[in-house]
Amino acid sequence: MLSTMPPVGFGLWKIPKEDTANAVVEAIRAGYRHFDSAADYGNEAESGEGFARAITEGLVTREELWITSKLWNTFHSAEHVEEACRKTLADLQVDCLDLYLIHFPIALEYVPIEERYPPEWLFNPDAAEPEMRPAKVPLHQTWHAMEALVEKGLAGRIGVCNYNTGLIHDLMSYASVKPSHLQIESHPYLTQEKLIRCAKGYGIDVTAFSPLGAQSYFELGMADAGESLLGAAPVMVAAQAHGKTPAQVLLKWGVQRGTSIIPKTTKPERMRENLAIDDFELSAVEMAAISALNQDRRFNDPGVFAEAAFGRFHPIYD
Amino acid sequence: MLSTMPPVGFGLWKIPKEDTANAVVEAIRAGYRHFDSAADYGNEAESGEGFARAITEGLVTREELWITSKLWNTFHSAEHVEEACRKTLADLQVDCLDLYLIHFPIALEYVPIEERYPPEWLFNPDAAEPEMRPAKVPLHQTWHAMEALVEKGLAGRIGVCNYNTGLIHDLMSYASVKPSHLQIESHPYLTQEKLIRCAKGYGIDVTAFSPLGAQSYFELGMADAGESLLGAAPVMVAAQAHGKTPAQVLLKWGVQRGTSIIPKTTKPERMRENLAIDDFELSAVEMAAISALNQDRRFNDPGVFAEAAFGRFHPIYD
Repeated sequence: MLSTMPPVGFGLWKIPKEDTANAVVEAIRAGYRHFDSAADYGNEAESGEGFARAITEGLVTREELWITSKLWNTFHSAEHVEEACRKTLADLQVDCLDLYLIHFPIALEYVPIEERYPPEWLFNPDAAEPEMRPAKVPLHQTWHAMEALVEKGLAGRIGVCNYNTGLIHDLMSYASVKPSHLQIESHPYLTQEKLIRCAKGYGIDVTAFSPLGAQSYFELGMADAGESLLGAAPVMVAAQAHGKTPAQVLLKWGVQRGTSIIPKTTKPERMRENLAIDDFELSAVEMAAISALNQDRRFNDPGVFAEAAFGRFHPIYD
Repeated sequence: MLSTMPPVGFGLWKIPKEDTANAVVEAIRAGYRHFDSAADYGNEAESGEGFARAITEGLVTREELWITSKLWNTFHSAEHVEEACRKTLADLQVDCLDLYLIHFPIALEYVPIEERYPPEWLFNPDAAEPEMRPAKVPLHQTWHAMEALVEKGLAGRIGVCNYNTGLIHDLMSYASVKPSHLQIESHPYLTQEKLIRCAKGYGIDVTAFSPLGAQSYFELGMADAGESLLGAAPVMVAAQAHGKTPAQVLLKWGVQRGTSIIPKTTKPERMRENLAIDDFELSAVEMAAISALNQDRRFNDPGVFAEAAFGRFHPIYD
């Protein structure tokens, strides 16, 4: 097992099933050693094929890979956490995850694996009026079940996603096994300084998802064209100064401020571009100018999308 | 006991000890029946004198009053919750609170009552380097101890203050006795639509503290003169249209959107002014124009003041 998370990971969210195995092999070939998966992404079996093929082909060993996955909302009950983790392990074709995260601080009613997998947000998607059904499962119960996975050797580390400072303080009050990582949306339009500082104060490392901001959300209709960070002045200026692309500048900004990042792409040349950020350094002025773009703009917010998509208003950040 | 909270309450925060008993009597004389107290305000014994005097003088009966108090951060441990509540009851000279709230989702190390009361934020204020010392007490343990107070008849209802949506969902997953009220900062510069809607969706009533916005914070150096809401255009326009003061418009806006409010003043004429908001109605256009002032400006934020005042960075809203 790797002792620390490689700062630039490969994000598997939204990679179509049919492209996933190849994308994983290509990413490993391009140099990625950190993969960010989740049951909910619907492509863990295909990711598993990719890992198996890369290992069989001798491109990499399991020990050289850092594999993160996430417990979906419908498996929060103590009696379902291990079942969900074992399903993910089987799909990914590994014995142990480097990191297993609670995907959202949202518990939904259980859906058996044999009935529908991944279960996603709706309890009964084929019903006349599909419902998102919250379940009464306290987060501390889910956390204690996550701790049991570490004791059983199914996960090397455990952590959380999409928690805010209020939930982090509470988690730290009941955690026997400490969360090693917090994964949150962060980019220059959502810098999250206080949350990141709070997590680090507890010794929790932070991984930023959607490090390129709006780029992940155009295809989902969750961002407007004008919200792209790639054309933001301080990003373009730094890109020109360093002979890098705006995307590389955004990724470098994320790493340089002490977060790990998990950009996604299926294009091999883009995979290499996203990894090639070790040969330059942003100045303090450039870092500050990019950070000053902050406008607390969150693209991935159940308080917005859950009502439109699933008919239930369920804010978690407000 | 009153069956519902009167929508305009009298806030006891920051009323100097020496003025408190008289202020309470004057407020009752002016018509207030709802009082918002807290151990941390440091004037509960004096408030108790005021209640006792008003009852003795026949101005009001205990049954006609709604009295809210709050559990301070240092009493979160299950074994200290009842002790704190009984101290508050003794100080207020009542047998039962109408509502007892967790003051902050922040647990601090216990300080015995006989050592220092109220204990405030610092563990050892006289030390060379005074410290704010968080304690590892999960919020669900504190809540279960609060529930026991209801079973013992020491509080008619229980609730929370300064919780965000993430914490509210979690609370609702483990609460046997449901929280009846959520108290939060809210005014036209911090409208908190999502949080209020989320709470109401759970059947939790919302009380807005600092309903006049910056007014409560000038004396504390926590707001700038330019941040006053009293001169905001849509507030002034509505005030003129209805022949009311800007403060009355702000208070009416709070009540009309379905929150209760707890303005504070020691001036009898201001007490009457703040209560006299039943004889007009803001139009939908006026309500919307005032709500549109929102800028998510929070004046009371431990993520800002705790570091400056107590040397510890402790955000809870981010």
